[in-house]
Amino acid sequence: MALFNKLFRRSPAIVAIGGGTGASSLLRGLKEHTDKLTAIVNVADDGGSSGRFRKEFGVLPPGDVRNCLAALSDAGPVLEKLFQYRFEEGELKGHAFGNIFLAALTKVTGDFASAVKEANRVLSVRGRVLPATNVKLSLVAEHEDGTKTTGESLVGKVEKAVTRLHLKPAEASAGPEVVEAIMQADLVVLGPGSLYTSVLPNLLIRDLREALLRTPALVGYVCNIMTQAGETAGMTASAHVRVIIEHSSPDLLDFVLVNTGPVPEKLAQAYAAEGSRPVEVDRDELARLMGAPKIITADLVNTENLVRHHPGKLAEVLLSSLREMAKKKTG
Amino acid sequence: MALFNKLFRRSPAIVAIGGGTGASSLLRGLKEHTDKLTAIVNVADDGGSSGRFRKEFGVLPPGDVRNCLAALSDAGPVLEKLFQYRFEEGELKGHAFGNIFLAALTKVTGDFASAVKEANRVLSVRGRVLPATNVKLSLVAEHEDGTKTTGESLVGKVEKAVTRLHLKPAEASAGPEVVEAIMQADLVVLGPGSLYTSVLPNLLIRDLREALLRTPALVGYVCNIMTQAGETAGMTASAHVRVIIEHSSPDLLDFVLVNTGPVPEKLAQAYAAEGSRPVEVDRDELARLMGAPKIITADLVNTENLVRHHPGKLAEVLLSSLREMAKKKTG
Repeated sequence: MALFNKLFRRSPAIVAIGGGTGASSLLRGLKEHTDKLTAIVNVADDGGSSGRFRKEFGVLPPGDVRNCLAALSDAGPVLEKLFQYRFEEGELKGHAFGNIFLAALTKVTGDFASAVKEANRVLSVRGRVLPATNVKLSLVAEHEDGTKTTGESLVGKVEKAVTRLHLKPAEASAGPEVVEAIMQADLVVLGPGSLYTSVLPNLLIRDLREALLRTPALVGYVCNIMTQAGETAGMTASAHVRVIIEHSSPDLLDFVLVNTGPVPEKLAQAYAAEGSRPVEVDRDELARLMGAPKIITADLVNTENLVRHHPGKLAEVLLSSLREMAKKKTG
Repeated sequence: MALFNKLFRRSPAIVAIGGGTGASSLLRGLKEHTDKLTAIVNVADDGGSSGRFRKEFGVLPPGDVRNCLAALSDAGPVLEKLFQYRFEEGELKGHAFGNIFLAALTKVTGDFASAVKEANRVLSVRGRVLPATNVKLSLVAEHEDGTKTTGESLVGKVEKAVTRLHLKPAEASAGPEVVEAIMQADLVVLGPGSLYTSVLPNLLIRDLREALLRTPALVGYVCNIMTQAGETAGMTASAHVRVIIEHSSPDLLDFVLVNTGPVPEKLAQAYAAEGSRPVEVDRDELARLMGAPKIITADLVNTENLVRHHPGKLAEVLLSSLREMAKKKTG
């Protein structure tokens, strides 16, 4: 942090928008560099344990919020492990404890936003986690042939490409706390994470999107390293960016960060078997779309047993980009 | 605490042995008077949500531990409410959140004692809650006709009187932490609580019972205000005490505290419909059993919508008894 503070004289305010495992890597990296970190998390999710909660208890689906709380928790390894623990037997089989925690807390406090606020406290979260909205949202995906698919878990399973994503209800609001965090940020990072089911839903919330267009912060998108079967199969980096622009504005992004590090052959093969391939960085098309100076490339790969963004590398690159761009602006 | 400290110059070390709602009243009262409070909680329990956990997850039944943690928690009203929250719908219907919490924590930490230790920390417990043993116990009740009933929840439902209670396995150990707490106490309180299913199981653990006989602390029993159908129906105060003595030693108790406050007629009628009546204080028989000086009587009734021990009254009487007896000893 020393060099950074020399340039900034204060900890930068960073907002990360997304959810899921992609967001976890980002947050784990960033939390070592700033104490002004806000994770804004998509809550339109009805798959898996989260989806069961939504159906069973009528509460907002807690999955992505759970991951971000765990990533930012300073409550120690036991509590973090507990929060991510998934029951392996009995009636609770398949349920993540953190989801049960958030569901019960929603019942006790009366609403999801209050539950998340209390969870931030209990888990000694460094920074804070905010749900993108307190409204129960469904995703509706339109396809080329004019058909529609509803529900997040469905989106990931449909082989037909998505041409347009909508929220239901369309007029959901993010609320003042989310808007304020974006307006007061130095840097806003979209992604990494599932394009249609973690990143995009946030941009469809009108006041959130408008704040992204108005904020003085740098707004960047971290493109995924791998495509996702049934969601972004065959999509290049520029195709990812185009979807974001089409659902918001050409002025939204100040930069895009793409991985150019190699994915180890053995892992690539395993991913290929699942219909997932490294995202092709089509630099020329990206440059046409955004302008070449806005493209940042780096080796961001973390390969233990999955291909993920490396928390440390990702944070370093983002922060040095922020420094560079801030220098250009002020200089 | 002022008057008390004048006499003692320090906070008294108090151990409460039992579990269930009776223990909660006691602990809520005592925690205002001392910071050296240990709740030792029976874990032989296979009824209700706790029993389901034992069957489903093979973990020790968390019910009574949960109640004591909630009673001593300083983590604020939301977390306490959360811990006692019982799901009202869906797959988790009937499960108390605190039980799910303890079950998951047992899986994550590897054993129940470690889970309870972590729970003490998370819930900012004033004092501490210790399970009586880390061994899975079943209760076996013998009846007059020679038949046996196994399992705590069964005990409470059987109409036949219990002549003798056993643990299975018989050789369970309480472990050094429990024994040390008892040995270093100024006051040990047994009960209030279900005689056969909350109080007695603790006395059947050999090293725990032996510590109670060896400790320099005053050891007292707080008799229940009401009888319990299928467990202590028709039993007088002396009958309660006799059962305790028969399962331990005539030397165990330094005093018995019985309620002589009236139970409001309307509540008494509601209880009577459930086969539950005020425990008759048969003073002469009690005196024959223990010696008159060991009998303490007081109005201990708390009547909101249930007949319970009043936390404040109970704690006051216990502490003034401790002072009196300590004065006699030293004087």
